[in-house]
Amino acid sequence: MKQNFTKIIVETNKQKIIEITDQIQSIIKSSGIRDGLVTLYIKHTSASLMIQENADSDVLRDIEKYFDRLVPMNESDYIHRTEGPDDMPAHIKSVLTSTHLSIPFQAKDLSLGTWQGIFLFEHRINPSSRTIEIHVIGE
Amino acid sequence: MKQNFTKIIVETNKQKIIEITDQIQSIIKSSGIRDGLVTLYIKHTSASLMIQENADSDVLRDIEKYFDRLVPMNESDYIHRTEGPDDMPAHIKSVLTSTHLSIPFQAKDLSLGTWQGIFLFEHRINPSSRTIEIHVIGE
Amino acid sequence: MKQNFTKIIVETNKQKIIEITDQIQSIIKSSGIRDGLVTLYIKHTSASLMIQENADSDVLRDIEKYFDRLVPMNESDYIHRTEGPDDMPAHIKSVLTSTHLSIPFQAKDLSLGTWQGIFLFEHRINPSSRTIEIHVIGE
Repeated sequence: MKQNFTKIIVETNKQKIIEITDQIQSIIKSSGIRDGLVTLYIKHTSASLMIQENADSDVLRDIEKYFDRLVPMNESDYIHRTEGPDDMPAHIKSVLTSTHLSIPFQAKDLSLGTWQGIFLFEHRINPSSRTIEIHVIGE
Repeated sequence: MKQNFTKIIVETNKQKIIEITDQIQSIIKSSGIRDGLVTLYIKHTSASLMIQENADSDVLRDIEKYFDRLVPMNESDYIHRTEGPDDMPAHIKSVLTSTHLSIPFQAKDLSLGTWQGIFLFEHRINPSSRTIEIHVIGE
Repeated sequence: MKQNFTKIIVETNKQKIIEITDQIQSIIKSSGIRDGLVTLYIKHTSASLMIQENADSDVLRDIEKYFDRLVPMNESDYIHRTEGPDDMPAHIKSVLTSTHLSIPFQAKDLSLGTWQGIFLFEHRINPSSRTIEIHVIGE
């Protein structure tokens, strides 16, 4: 059994869902591990990781809009306001979604469904540099 | 340290929460691994995995109803409509819940709480065949 | 490759987000494993695990308030009412958040972001004793 650690940095410049499937698949290919489990962990609390459909990008746009309605920016009730009107909604969206993902892989291929992709969901408006830690274990 | 990979297929025929605890416990029993971690990964973006109470099925009915209210089918705002009125809500429910679960086990017993069960949460109306990949690691 | 299993018990006495980062970091330090993956699993369906900001506690208070609004106690629609008005909302909040977390660590340090902490999110009003199973794997 072996493990390895790597990280990727994703540059974002607005609230948006960004596909990272190819980058994760590449890391598996070059990991030296044929069969195992990969865990992604995002080191931020105002952006998330997500598995979703990658066939029709309208699905992603509808998800972005739904979350903007569910967690509105102009909520007079928020106490934490010092980092801008999009900050507290970003934290709440991160709680409602995922900070980590674990996906099995076999023969160096992620066990994703036919139309599944791996995504970073950026919740902040201003440009950010997002770090994702990637742990691979297997043999 | 050893690992193994298996999968189960769950047939669904409506929007419903379905218990799969016994099937996962059986896989652990026959895995050849005594102590370790099991990870379940569902290969779909319109059904979820969930840990919940399995003592009173009213809890499950209330969860189903809550999610139907939180993510309504007749939302005039959805762009993605080609796969039916239940499709976009299904994708959103999958983002709000979980695509994967990891549970420790010892002496071939899942470390579930007294009233915890493992469930598949089907978000589509029409019958579906749902594949869950199961990765077991330990010794 | 090695693994170990431990558990912690967190006493709660109201609906609140409670930081447990130091306890998890201590378990890593004394695990005998330098680099690996830690998985936390909470054995309850009315409390959750969460990664969030630990710099400004106002963020936590805003999250608590948001979830109380999103999943109200006085929802006439709930069927499951035998365990008190806070019980069914607690189950729903647990579905909307996380029952397990996986975090990589290197050189005995959790790969948390600068302002990230690990939290237990208690959803019940009455005092509870919450058990979290902790699985560490690595070498």
